[in-house]
Amino acid sequence: MTACFYFFGVMPVSTIIDTIRSRRSVRDFTGAPISKDDINTILDAGRWAPSGLNNQPWRYIVVQDCETIEEIATCTHYSNVVQGAPLLIVVFLNHDAKYNYMKDVQAIGASIQNMLLVCCELELGAVWLGEILNRKEKVNSILDAPDSLELMAVLAIGCPVEKERISTRKGVDDVTFNEKFGTGWVGRDEEI
Amino acid sequence: MTACFYFFGVMPVSTIIDTIRSRRSVRDFTGAPISKDDINTILDAGRWAPSGLNNQPWRYIVVQDCETIEEIATCTHYSNVVQGAPLLIVVFLNHDAKYNYMKDVQAIGASIQNMLLVCCELELGAVWLGEILNRKEKVNSILDAPDSLELMAVLAIGCPVEKERISTRKGVDDVTFNEKFGTGWVGRDEEI
Repeated sequence: MTACFYFFGVMPVSTIIDTIRSRRSVRDFTGAPISKDDINTILDAGRWAPSGLNNQPWRYIVVQDCETIEEIATCTHYSNVVQGAPLLIVVFLNHDAKYNYMKDVQAIGASIQNMLLVCCELELGAVWLGEILNRKEKVNSILDAPDSLELMAVLAIGCPVEKERISTRKGVDDVTFNEKFGTGWVGRDEEI
Repeated sequence: MTACFYFFGVMPVSTIIDTIRSRRSVRDFTGAPISKDDINTILDAGRWAPSGLNNQPWRYIVVQDCETIEEIATCTHYSNVVQGAPLLIVVFLNHDAKYNYMKDVQAIGASIQNMLLVCCELELGAVWLGEILNRKEKVNSILDAPDSLELMAVLAIGCPVEKERISTRKGVDDVTFNEKFGTGWVGRDEEI
């Protein structure tokens, strides 16, 4: 029911729920460059996230320069992932636009998720790198970013090497209560 | 190019970027009930968000009981929005699953955004309520939720009353730097 086709073509596209479920972290890239149009589409998705009072606390630095990528790679245990990516989108929280720290951080998460989902739609692979936050001062230094920009994540993006990628989640019933805490939510009938 | 049709039907569906751009906060609902299938689809999207070490720190309470909705409505200045919604999904951070607070809060933001996007796909309206966090202890008390569950947001969901809803964002160029901080990113050629 959810399969559909481009109106003027034959490329199958997925619905949002399909993309949300099938999205996987991609850490192996072919090295093919990413078009500027695709980068703009990803950034466009990021900026259209919701935020408290619409304060839009995100700032992005697009990194494609090989030397800068090499420098950033030294800031994480996953240096091979960063080195293999033709594109990094470095995501910051702009403290000058601060509304409420916790809500701003949630908004950043929404912005990142928008970008990851659109990468899928563009048939790009991406991985959300968080461990690099251990060296956030160093990353800021490499990118000349002021203290008012707090590193939130680095997205490594590229054309995915084809391979099977598996992930799992707890069931809906495992993370959901019905009306009150402690009362189990029973999912779809076929899952009972 | 992005318009497409269900393979076995004629309902037009949008691509993800279209949905991300056209999604609006909906605060007026018709009162029509939401099917259990739709609720499960929304929750399914929420749980498939990425999280640090895949710790899945989210917990949800589905609220449809009128009396409970009325009680929760007393915890926010936007009581009329809550009262008008046939469905609330109350989103918590489960501190028992904690990995890193900031990254967990980002993951919650990603989970919420997944749910909001899928609401669009289901032609439901939704609004992300954050101001209610000012009364988070009271919300926990109403829902019998323990202190280990920290209120993150309430999503009010229903069938949207049709009306024009406008929102704006800063331009991609306004929130993006190229290679280093301070060097402007120039967006699409047609935007120069």
